[in-house]
Amino acid sequence: MKQFTQPPQAWTLARLAELVGGECRGDPGRRISGAAPFEAASGDEISFAVGPFLKRLDTSRAGAFVVPRGAAVAGRDSIEADSPQAAFALILRQFYPRQRPAPGIAPTAVIGSRFQCADGVSIGPQVVIGDGVTLGPGVILHPQVVLGDGVTVGADSEIFPQVTILAGCRIGARVRIQSGTVIGSDGFGYARQGAQYVRIPHRGIVQIDDDVEIGAGNTIDRATYGRTWLQRGVKTDNLVHVAHNVTVGEDTVIVAQVGISGSVTIGRQVILAGQAGVAGHLSIGDQATVGPRAGVARSVAAGEVVS
Amino acid sequence: MKQFTQPPQAWTLARLAELVGGECRGDPGRRISGAAPFEAASGDEISFAVGPFLKRLDTSRAGAFVVPRGAAVAGRDSIEADSPQAAFALILRQFYPRQRPAPGIAPTAVIGSRFQCADGVSIGPQVVIGDGVTLGPGVILHPQVVLGDGVTVGADSEIFPQVTILAGCRIGARVRIQSGTVIGSDGFGYARQGAQYVRIPHRGIVQIDDDVEIGAGNTIDRATYGRTWLQRGVKTDNLVHVAHNVTVGEDTVIVAQVGISGSVTIGRQVILAGQAGVAGHLSIGDQATVGPRAGVARSVAAGEVVS
Amino acid sequence: MKQFTQPPQAWTLARLAELVGGECRGDPGRRISGAAPFEAASGDEISFAVGPFLKRLDTSRAGAFVVPRGAAVAGRDSIEADSPQAAFALILRQFYPRQRPAPGIAPTAVIGSRFQCADGVSIGPQVVIGDGVTLGPGVILHPQVVLGDGVTVGADSEIFPQVTILAGCRIGARVRIQSGTVIGSDGFGYARQGAQYVRIPHRGIVQIDDDVEIGAGNTIDRATYGRTWLQRGVKTDNLVHVAHNVTVGEDTVIVAQVGISGSVTIGRQVILAGQAGVAGHLSIGDQATVGPRAGVARSVAAGEVVS
Repeated sequence: MKQFTQPPQAWTLARLAELVGGECRGDPGRRISGAAPFEAASGDEISFAVGPFLKRLDTSRAGAFVVPRGAAVAGRDSIEADSPQAAFALILRQFYPRQRPAPGIAPTAVIGSRFQCADGVSIGPQVVIGDGVTLGPGVILHPQVVLGDGVTVGADSEIFPQVTILAGCRIGARVRIQSGTVIGSDGFGYARQGAQYVRIPHRGIVQIDDDVEIGAGNTIDRATYGRTWLQRGVKTDNLVHVAHNVTVGEDTVIVAQVGISGSVTIGRQVILAGQAGVAGHLSIGDQATVGPRAGVARSVAAGEVVS
Repeated sequence: MKQFTQPPQAWTLARLAELVGGECRGDPGRRISGAAPFEAASGDEISFAVGPFLKRLDTSRAGAFVVPRGAAVAGRDSIEADSPQAAFALILRQFYPRQRPAPGIAPTAVIGSRFQCADGVSIGPQVVIGDGVTLGPGVILHPQVVLGDGVTVGADSEIFPQVTILAGCRIGARVRIQSGTVIGSDGFGYARQGAQYVRIPHRGIVQIDDDVEIGAGNTIDRATYGRTWLQRGVKTDNLVHVAHNVTVGEDTVIVAQVGISGSVTIGRQVILAGQAGVAGHLSIGDQATVGPRAGVARSVAAGEVVS
Repeated sequence: MKQFTQPPQAWTLARLAELVGGECRGDPGRRISGAAPFEAASGDEISFAVGPFLKRLDTSRAGAFVVPRGAAVAGRDSIEADSPQAAFALILRQFYPRQRPAPGIAPTAVIGSRFQCADGVSIGPQVVIGDGVTLGPGVILHPQVVLGDGVTVGADSEIFPQVTILAGCRIGARVRIQSGTVIGSDGFGYARQGAQYVRIPHRGIVQIDDDVEIGAGNTIDRATYGRTWLQRGVKTDNLVHVAHNVTVGEDTVIVAQVGISGSVTIGRQVILAGQAGVAGHLSIGDQATVGPRAGVARSVAAGEVVS
C-alpha cells in the first residue's frame, strides 16, 4: 500500500475485493466511498461482520460487508475473505491512508557529521541526529526524535515524536516506534562489591528487524554484549519493558505493561498478555501463550499455555 | 483561585475561614502567613488536624488548625470545615500559588499554519505545534511539548514538559497533563492474517474533558473509531495505560501503573488502585472500587468492591 | 576511572590485576587488549569465570580469566579477585570507556538567568534550562534534557536524552538518569470534597544523592512537603514509579516496573524485584528482599524475605 497518493473518491466493490484477495458477492459495480464499524457505517460505506453479527446485518446501514468465506450472505452485497478483519483493515488503510509529512529536513533539526540520507525522508522540527547516522528511503522522523551516533533506520520506517534511539542501535524497514519510547538504554547490570554495586558497561546494541511495531512508552535496553533483538513482525503495546540480551521471535505479540527480564529467549508467534512478567534467563517456546498478569518463573514449552 | 497574583503577606484567620467556607473558632484577627504540616508548622502558620491528631494539638507549634466540624478545639485557634483536608489544600493553594510563566511565545517554538491562540497563553521553548491547533485563554505549554495537527486545548490547561498530544485530540479546560505522557498514540489493534498481523488504522481520537488531571508517563491510545474518553474530573497517577475506545466516567481515580484494556467502560467515582488491570470489553459500574494489584476479568457492578 | 583519556592499546595482566586489586597468576607480562564474555573472547582478550565455568575453561579462547580468590586455575593465565564480576566490570570500563561529548554548550540550548556552570560541562542540542540552575564540573546533559528553575546537578552526573527534572530538585554527584525519566512530577495527592477532588499543592522536592543510577522511563514524584529522597548508591531499573515523600536507603536496588506508594520508607541494601508493589505509609527494613511481583501490604522487618 502506497501512503503517498490520495485514494480515489470511490471504489467499486469488485476492485476492493481484488485489493484484499477476496470474492465479490452481489453487485460488483456498487460504489463504496468509505469504511466504518458495523453500527456507524452509512449506505456508501463498507463494514465487516463475523459471528453473531452475520445474523443481524439488517441492523446496519452499511452498503456492503466483508464477511468470512462461505458466509453466503443473502440480500446484501459482500466480499468474502479468509480473514475478514485483516481484509477490512486493508480497506481502511486504502480509504484513510496515514498522512505523511512532506519530504525534507526541518530547519530546526540538528544533524551530525557523516549523515547518510536516502530519498523521500521527512525530518521534523527539533529532531537531533548524532554522527554517522543512516536513514533509508521514505523514513519519517517526527518532531523531537533523538537518534544517537551510528544509528541506522531502514526504508519507510516511522518514528513518532519524542522517541529516543541511542547510539549504535539498528532499526529495520517499515518499523513503527510510537511516542515516548526509549531504544538502547543501558541494561540493569551491576556486579556486587561488598554492599555496593559496580555498573557493568553495556557494549551491545538493540536490533529491531523489519515490520516490527513498538507502542508508546516502551523501554528496550541494549545488550551487555551482542544484541537485544526483536525479530521480524514483533508487535508491542504500551509501557512494555524489554531488558538486556532478550531475543523475541518473529510475529510475537507483547501486550501492555509486560516486563521481560534479562537474557530471556522468546520464540515465534508467542502471545504475552497484559501485565505479565518473565524472570531472567528463561526461554518461551514458539506459539506459547502467557495469560494476563501471569508471572513466568520457569521456561515454557512450545505451544504451552500459561496463566 | 487566581494563580496570577501574589498572595498578601498574611491573612486573618477569619478571612481564611471565609475562603474555605468554614467557621472561625478563637481569635478571628490572628495573622496567618503560611501553611505547613502538623509537625513542621511554625507559630504564624496554619496546619490541619483530624482523628488522633486532634488529641495532641499541643505537640504542634502551628498558630491555628483546620479541623472537622464540631471538633470544638479548646485553647487553640481553629477553622472548622466539612472537609479539613480539602480546606487545607485550598489554603495551601492560596499561600503558595503555582508560579506560572509569563504569557508569550518563546522564539524557539515552532508553530504550524492556521494557529488560533487566545489571550494569556504561555508557550515555552522548543514547543512544536502542528497545523490547525487551537489554544484557549491562559493555556500553558511548558518546554518541549508537541501538539499534532488539529489539537485543541481548553482554557487554563497546563501541559508539562515533554508531553506529546497527537493529531486531532481534544483537551478540555483546566486540564493538567504531567511530563512524559503520550495522548493519542495508535491503539494496539491488529487483524491476524495467517501467522502475521495487519495493523488496523486508528481513525479516532482521545477526548479529555474539563478538570481532568493526568500524571507522568501515561499512555492514552486513540480510538479505532470514535473516541477514547476521559470524562470531567478524572485523575490519573503515573505510568497508567489506557487503551483504545476506553471510556472513564466523571471523578474516577486511577492509581499508578494501572492498565485498562481496549473498549472498557468505567463509571463515575470509581477507584482503581495501584497496579490493577482490567481485561478488554468489560464494564465497571459507578462508585465501584478495584483493589491494589487486582486483575479484573469480569464486569463489576456499581458499588462493588473487588480485590 | 577517567573517562576522558583513550585506554592504552594493551595492558599487561599484572597491571590489570593491580587495577582491580586482584592477584596475578601465570604470566604477568601477557598482553591483554580487550575484554569479552566467556564464549566470545579471543586470545588477546580477558574474560571471567565463576562456578561451573571454572571446570570448562578449555572451551573459551580467552587469553586470561578473572576468577574467584583461591580458584588456582591450572594451565591458564588468570587474575584472582574477591568479586570477579565487579573486577571484570572495572576492566570493561577501562577498555571501553563511555565516550563523552566534548565540553561546551550547544547553540540550540536555551538557558535561563542566573546560570552557574562549572568547568567541563557538556550541554547538548535543544536542552532547556530554567532560571537559577547550577551544574557541577563535568556534568553531561544530553540532547533535549529539560531542567526546571533552581535545579542543581552535582559533579560528573550524566543526564540522558529527553529527561525532565522539574523545579527545585537536587541531583548529587556521579548520578546517571536514563532517557524518558521524569523527576519531580507532582505527587498524586487529592483531598475529597463531596464527589470531587481538590488537588493538594506539592511544595516539596526530589533529592537524589551521589552515585544513584536511575533507569529509563521512571517517574519520581516530588514531596507534598519536604523531599522524596533517594539516598547514596540507589539503583533503579526501567519504568519504576516512586510516589511523593518516599525515602529509599543507601545501595537499595529497585528492579523494573516496581511501584512504591506515597510516604513509604525503605531501608539500606534492600532488593525490590520486578513488578513488585508497596502500599502507602509502610516501611521496609534494611537488607530486606521483596520477591518478583510481590504485593507488599504490611511493613517488612530488616532482613526479611517477602514473596
